[in-house]
Amino acid sequence: MTDRIATIQRLLVEHGADAALLTFLPDIRWAVGFTGSNALLAVTREVAHFVTDGRYTAQAAEEVFGAEVHVPGYALVEHVQQEDLLGGAGAVLVQADHLTVAQLDELRERFGGVRFEAVSGLLREAVASKSEGEIEAIRRAQAVTEAVFDEILPLIGPGVSERDLAAEIVYQHLKRGAAAMAFEPIVASGLRGALPHGRPSGKTLRPGELIVIDMGCVLDGYNSDMTRTVALGEPEDEARAAYAVVLDAQRRAVEAVRAGASTNAVDAVARDRIAEAGLGEYFSHGLGHGVGLQVHEWPRLSSHTDDVLPENAVVTVEPGVYLPERFGIRIEDLVVARAGGPEVLTRTPKDLLVL
Amino acid sequence: MTDRIATIQRLLVEHGADAALLTFLPDIRWAVGFTGSNALLAVTREVAHFVTDGRYTAQAAEEVFGAEVHVPGYALVEHVQQEDLLGGAGAVLVQADHLTVAQLDELRERFGGVRFEAVSGLLREAVASKSEGEIEAIRRAQAVTEAVFDEILPLIGPGVSERDLAAEIVYQHLKRGAAAMAFEPIVASGLRGALPHGRPSGKTLRPGELIVIDMGCVLDGYNSDMTRTVALGEPEDEARAAYAVVLDAQRRAVEAVRAGASTNAVDAVARDRIAEAGLGEYFSHGLGHGVGLQVHEWPRLSSHTDDVLPENAVVTVEPGVYLPERFGIRIEDLVVARAGGPEVLTRTPKDLLVL
Repeated sequence: MTDRIATIQRLLVEHGADAALLTFLPDIRWAVGFTGSNALLAVTREVAHFVTDGRYTAQAAEEVFGAEVHVPGYALVEHVQQEDLLGGAGAVLVQADHLTVAQLDELRERFGGVRFEAVSGLLREAVASKSEGEIEAIRRAQAVTEAVFDEILPLIGPGVSERDLAAEIVYQHLKRGAAAMAFEPIVASGLRGALPHGRPSGKTLRPGELIVIDMGCVLDGYNSDMTRTVALGEPEDEARAAYAVVLDAQRRAVEAVRAGASTNAVDAVARDRIAEAGLGEYFSHGLGHGVGLQVHEWPRLSSHTDDVLPENAVVTVEPGVYLPERFGIRIEDLVVARAGGPEVLTRTPKDLLVL
Repeated sequence: MTDRIATIQRLLVEHGADAALLTFLPDIRWAVGFTGSNALLAVTREVAHFVTDGRYTAQAAEEVFGAEVHVPGYALVEHVQQEDLLGGAGAVLVQADHLTVAQLDELRERFGGVRFEAVSGLLREAVASKSEGEIEAIRRAQAVTEAVFDEILPLIGPGVSERDLAAEIVYQHLKRGAAAMAFEPIVASGLRGALPHGRPSGKTLRPGELIVIDMGCVLDGYNSDMTRTVALGEPEDEARAAYAVVLDAQRRAVEAVRAGASTNAVDAVARDRIAEAGLGEYFSHGLGHGVGLQVHEWPRLSSHTDDVLPENAVVTVEPGVYLPERFGIRIEDLVVARAGGPEVLTRTPKDLLVL
């Protein structure tokens, strides 16, 4: 029995359940190491059973630890039933925030006598608290992203399109061994920077513009995430002043990240600083989010959440301001919530870079 | 009122419901044109209400047609309730195959008097039957993928790694204006070709190998999807013979695609041909799937499904054989199920290309 299966078994006891049937692939990967695209994990108080399909016979044998591997020649749920992998459980936990209504209906129909208890966020705290090995994996993914950032800086010049720069960002990540991008890179220049999630367009870069670049990749299953805002030539005074505010807010919020801090308190550190400067209405999103096997994980740092940061959670700290029809600025680092304070994983400098 | 909103309203009548609350973004895009990442669509028998958040104010105003646009300053579901956008409905359809258990619980808690009826596949037939404009959009996305295929052929040579070829495939798509890849490209060479979903690795291409290349992109929201298997130098006789079998099976199955055909019958055309050649056990997946705003849509062409192809559904036809520790072969085209028979959207030749 591994620590992670033991963690799930403790949750069974806490919820007064006999078993859990996990369906969310990132959580299954967290629990037993499987990286494929189809699997179930049944955990009873005694044992864990992992079920996948025939495409993954070799891969499951190689990757899965801490659970007995099953590769039936038919539907996975059917196998759980036929082989009684829930061990005659009366009460079974399922993942309310990942299971669809149709999937739960199918379970209830198939397992007539079982009471399924749908729980939200079942594993979120356990998954958020990263091992040193996981933090190292995130650091490696982040190192790829930062090497790409250095590589593309010389390409930023007048006449280059956002789209071409984004294509180069993706290409350089993949050439360096990233399995995929964590999300489509954002390259938003000039007044397009005021769209917090602007898709790269055919617009070309012009002197005097700020350029928001937000990118991350997946390496060995773990995600990176970084935003930098750079200037192509000298920016207007107001943009430079706003940059200084966002940077100061970002640095203060980073300092507030630690195990035990509350998510809205950390958000408030940045939000208050930006509001003091009269830019509060332009900071239109939350401060950050957890990062790990998913690029957006629990916890969210936001004025709407009130969670406690678990020790060794990895979160983004990414305040921004978006002045409509003017410019946008966002600065984002990855930070580990250590017991004694923040450990910043991101190495790329944050002072305004004028290219 | 647009045709598509009228279609949803007909479904209300069919299900004896007063309203539908749609949550699945590709379906919302289909219904009203919105391309952002957060939205709800409430459709009553009289009117349609579209709800999104403040990031998308400008975008919603520009994109959404056939529905009244709402941009509340708080949670979308809360707005639906406060503004009574379900119009006092007693019975409301929701999407069982897309809504999570937690989301349905929240709805039931918030809308005390409403009976939510969770239906699977609510819009699948309507979405599957493409308009000529949609078919044209898929054709354009497919044209990008085929131009990329032509562009990368000269790069296929001894010593090039699968990963580098995949990076080039992504780069060329993005340079040509694709918003994203439909999925991570598959480049699987030699005995790695026997993994139907092999991720590109650091393995380099060697003379005599078959190389399976499966790729697609997203352009203006619509997806492309194509697989070709090429040979680097003269392949062994058995690989050549298997290629001929798969190609013949693929051509026959394409001929069977038409409005009204049943999905397992089309699958059987290819499966029987491959089985006759003694390779049946190596064709380990379904024949194909619908393509549109999602790269994998209903209907699936498979021995496990028994659906009727709607007129103007766009489906892949992609039989393959995977001989463990030997080689893999897959050939995939996009085909429109016209009333009179198949219309093949893919132009790239299918005879074995020996490079």
